[in-house]
Amino acid sequence: MFREEIKVLDCTIRDGGLINNYQFKDDLVKATYRAACDAAVDYFEIGKRLCESSDFPRDKFGAWNFCDDDDIKRVINSYESETRPKLAVMFDVGRVDVSTLEPADQTDLDMIRTACYVADVDKGLDLVKRTKDLGYLTTLNIMAPSVAIETELIEGLEAVNESDETDYLYLVDSYGAFYSEQIAHYIDLYRKHAPGKELGFHAHNNQQLAFANTQEAIIRGVNLLDATVNGIGRGAGNCNIELLLNFLKNPKFNVEPIYEVIQEYYVPLRDEIEWGYNDIYGISGSLNQHPRAAMRQRADATSRNNCLDFYNDCRDID
Amino acid sequence: MFREEIKVLDCTIRDGGLINNYQFKDDLVKATYRAACDAAVDYFEIGKRLCESSDFPRDKFGAWNFCDDDDIKRVINSYESETRPKLAVMFDVGRVDVSTLEPADQTDLDMIRTACYVADVDKGLDLVKRTKDLGYLTTLNIMAPSVAIETELIEGLEAVNESDETDYLYLVDSYGAFYSEQIAHYIDLYRKHAPGKELGFHAHNNQQLAFANTQEAIIRGVNLLDATVNGIGRGAGNCNIELLLNFLKNPKFNVEPIYEVIQEYYVPLRDEIEWGYNDIYGISGSLNQHPRAAMRQRADATSRNNCLDFYNDCRDID
Repeated sequence: MFREEIKVLDCTIRDGGLINNYQFKDDLVKATYRAACDAAVDYFEIGKRLCESSDFPRDKFGAWNFCDDDDIKRVINSYESETRPKLAVMFDVGRVDVSTLEPADQTDLDMIRTACYVADVDKGLDLVKRTKDLGYLTTLNIMAPSVAIETELIEGLEAVNESDETDYLYLVDSYGAFYSEQIAHYIDLYRKHAPGKELGFHAHNNQQLAFANTQEAIIRGVNLLDATVNGIGRGAGNCNIELLLNFLKNPKFNVEPIYEVIQEYYVPLRDEIEWGYNDIYGISGSLNQHPRAAMRQRADATSRNNCLDFYNDCRDID
Repeated sequence: MFREEIKVLDCTIRDGGLINNYQFKDDLVKATYRAACDAAVDYFEIGKRLCESSDFPRDKFGAWNFCDDDDIKRVINSYESETRPKLAVMFDVGRVDVSTLEPADQTDLDMIRTACYVADVDKGLDLVKRTKDLGYLTTLNIMAPSVAIETELIEGLEAVNESDETDYLYLVDSYGAFYSEQIAHYIDLYRKHAPGKELGFHAHNNQQLAFANTQEAIIRGVNLLDATVNGIGRGAGNCNIELLLNFLKNPKFNVEPIYEVIQEYYVPLRDEIEWGYNDIYGISGSLNQHPRAAMRQRADATSRNNCLDFYNDCRDID
């Protein structure tokens, strides 16, 4: 598949950080950034930019939950590259303070991605407007549409369509619940109700469908694609960026640096933290449920592989 | 997806046996058969039916490479069921002796699947004819079409179309190399040149696409689908039968017995033998290569995760 408009966004550190409280060591973040540069991916999301507080301290929640200017500089100054990706961070509605963000021309950041649930689309759009006013590229990532009431989702999409400040609207398969035919359905829905917006897609791999659904999004004309090194990400993880780059025929991309950083950094990391498909996440995805119960099951050493028990627990009707 | 015509073929023991020389213990084979009965899958492939010889002895190559009548009886007599699947074995061209096979009405077998490469389609069709003459349901599984010269493949497809004795023609993604758009292309090709044949599909999971490609085959009208418990199978394995049953909406299927046998038998088995996606198989699939180099790499304790080295080795041009 070659289409020049297709852009790849590496959200390794941001989505991967969800499974280790953003406690990645600097050398891994730097190596991942270097790989993104050499692979010529288009965007690199280095973390979230949330507010530090006494309840949410930096030592417990990790540097990449906050992405101070100094943190970012330490990484991007570690490697010179002619194919430096644009730099992104994520905003969570309700946990950020825009007043602490400098205008785009005074920071190293290029893009602010705002994530919200369907119910909070208006709050999300407010953040999008304020970040756009500061000169940033913007996205609105509506989480968990697979459990949204469709009329409410449509209302949200129409609001996004009215918002001149939203550069990209994201379809997000938060629960890893979508089959490819549903990706097609939702993309049609997003197109119908937000016809003026460029679309992005963010997959989860609960049913081994993150890469396949990303292909379906490509086939349906989506041009901004999230992926992570080795598929790292919450629960079953995301679309593997190395598989995606193999699939994309644009000669500007180079997969070799991705395999290099996997071999050197992510293979050892797999001994410390877990991500990727397993039976428990497969059940969670097929039942269209939030992954928190699956994550809890995987964290329990005695029952982590008890897929029958988990399947029955998930379907219990009170 | 509900379509009454869709049939599921459980090839757990046959494809899984490729990674342990068919040394499954009886209790696992019986438990898998019981799960297939209770899940109401349509076919159960219990192994291969190859010729025993001094070079190919039963103790080294395992009972399920030979599937003697006694082996089969031991399994199917262990469980009574009203939803007993039809029983299948696989023939490999050049390694079988049809003269030792009794007519269908004198055995417990219902279907003989003949596997061959494109170059051997005529030999395959000869076996298909001889097994059909004995009263069996038949399939021809053409292996590795992703590396076949298309004119030769077409010639083979046309020969299959002429063969009245072939009940099902299989598209087989032996190398786990196909993307969904290629599944669509090959199904169109098979339909065009073998319009009289019902199609089957057999996936491999090298690029995490076995389940997705099986869905694509369904969408394209294929009605006989191979899958295995927990995705066990050579290399990266096959389409997970539990994911597939979750996807299929036919109420006759029941996924719970599959999760039960996984929890009891396949979770412990994962500590003994390896199957499923990893970086090495991902590279092998994306480069459309036979999995033998990947399997060798995975068997080497010191280099099994060295995906960069493997990627570079695979692309070396002498």
